[in-house]
Amino acid sequence: MSYKLTYFDFKGRGEAIRLLLATAGVKFADDRVKLENWPSIKPHTPWEMVPVLHVGDRSLSQSLTICRYIARKFKLMGANEWEASKCDEYAETINDLYLEWIKFNFEADPDKKAELKNAFLTTLVPKYLIKLNTLQSNNGGNFLVGNTLTWADIFVADKLQTFEDTVDQGVLNEYPHLRKMKDAVFAEPRIKAYIEGR
Amino acid sequence: MSYKLTYFDFKGRGEAIRLLLATAGVKFADDRVKLENWPSIKPHTPWEMVPVLHVGDRSLSQSLTICRYIARKFKLMGANEWEASKCDEYAETINDLYLEWIKFNFEADPDKKAELKNAFLTTLVPKYLIKLNTLQSNNGGNFLVGNTLTWADIFVADKLQTFEDTVDQGVLNEYPHLRKMKDAVFAEPRIKAYIEGR
Ligand SMILES: N[C@@H](CCC(=O)N[C@@H](CS)C(=O)NCC(=O)O)C(=O)O
Ligand SMILES: N[C@@H](CCC(=O)N[C@@H](CS)C(=O)NCC(=O)O)C(=O)O
Repeated sequence: MSYKLTYFDFKGRGEAIRLLLATAGVKFADDRVKLENWPSIKPHTPWEMVPVLHVGDRSLSQSLTICRYIARKFKLMGANEWEASKCDEYAETINDLYLEWIKFNFEADPDKKAELKNAFLTTLVPKYLIKLNTLQSNNGGNFLVGNTLTWADIFVADKLQTFEDTVDQGVLNEYPHLRKMKDAVFAEPRIKAYIEGR
Repeated sequence: MSYKLTYFDFKGRGEAIRLLLATAGVKFADDRVKLENWPSIKPHTPWEMVPVLHVGDRSLSQSLTICRYIARKFKLMGANEWEASKCDEYAETINDLYLEWIKFNFEADPDKKAELKNAFLTTLVPKYLIKLNTLQSNNGGNFLVGNTLTWADIFVADKLQTFEDTVDQGVLNEYPHLRKMKDAVFAEPRIKAYIEGR
């Protein structure tokens, strides 16, 4: 089966998929659309958006859907259906926070952007990360779900990395379990090899 | 196993879950929080939000996660993992459109609201529904995925009903397959019985 991921040449909604494919040990074509070519490609995508994962001659859209598909196929969604649902819950929850990040990150007006960024850092980040950090702590401290790596860890780690890189390097200071999990994800040999080879 | 759904006393992000539980023939406690009681309940929910599905003594959050959990348990997600992923894709896609609906529906400024509503109706609705209508047509015309009812039909039908009720009764005029699917969902005997009994 051949895999091709079409996305832009940045992390955004594509990077978690790339990290998952790397973790699963799947070879895939990393099709990075240049922004200047997007207008001519856009009408030919299923929903006029990316990411799109091409699996043989079929395609799948929606970043969370794509991650979940890979996770189920390559056994990265926990030990049973309840754990699979917990992966879904945590991924969808961090995605809610990511949607708030998008709001301030793409705000054009600098005053409004600063205001939104401040609210993101002081109100939204604690609201979500205190809970996520606590539930990981209650789960033994290493993983978000069960006692193995799941796509929830990878998906959340990718978003946390984005928040560190673009909002504040100290964003995880008060969430040691999440930082440990993120570091473990990026220390995973196949993820490391993928990032170094990129 | 006992089921309780905690949500507000309106459709919003809870109704698709109620319709799914009804379709699955699951008895559930329909816990409808009054808005005036919400401030005292909110801190005791896992993420300070609803819907929350209580399954025995465990709980699950995130509306799409909850729907998918019920769908997997009660075989409403197609015949195989590819169809399950297509259910995910279509539900997540209509949810993108619903997030746009939320934007205009909760806009306080009347001029801005009218402008957003107009953009919703003239730009966003066609962008999504032309494609959804076409793929249902290509799939035989009756269902979005495979050849049985899935949670994607129920989830999409619920959102389409909301758009008809709150944006424009004629919103489906140019999407006959989607209208047919929506009508079929609401004619499903268990869904009909649930709605009549409510
Ligand atoms: N809910 C979708 C959103 C996809 C989305 O918004 N994609 C953006 C890039 S991150 C896009 O394709 N933008 C280009 C455009 O809309 O023309 C997902 O999670 O995949
Ligand atoms: N992504 C979540 C969003 C949940 C959400 O925004 N819930 C709203 C009601 S629809 C809520 O709890 N609002 C009350 C509050 O935030 O205090 C989901 O799909 O379940």
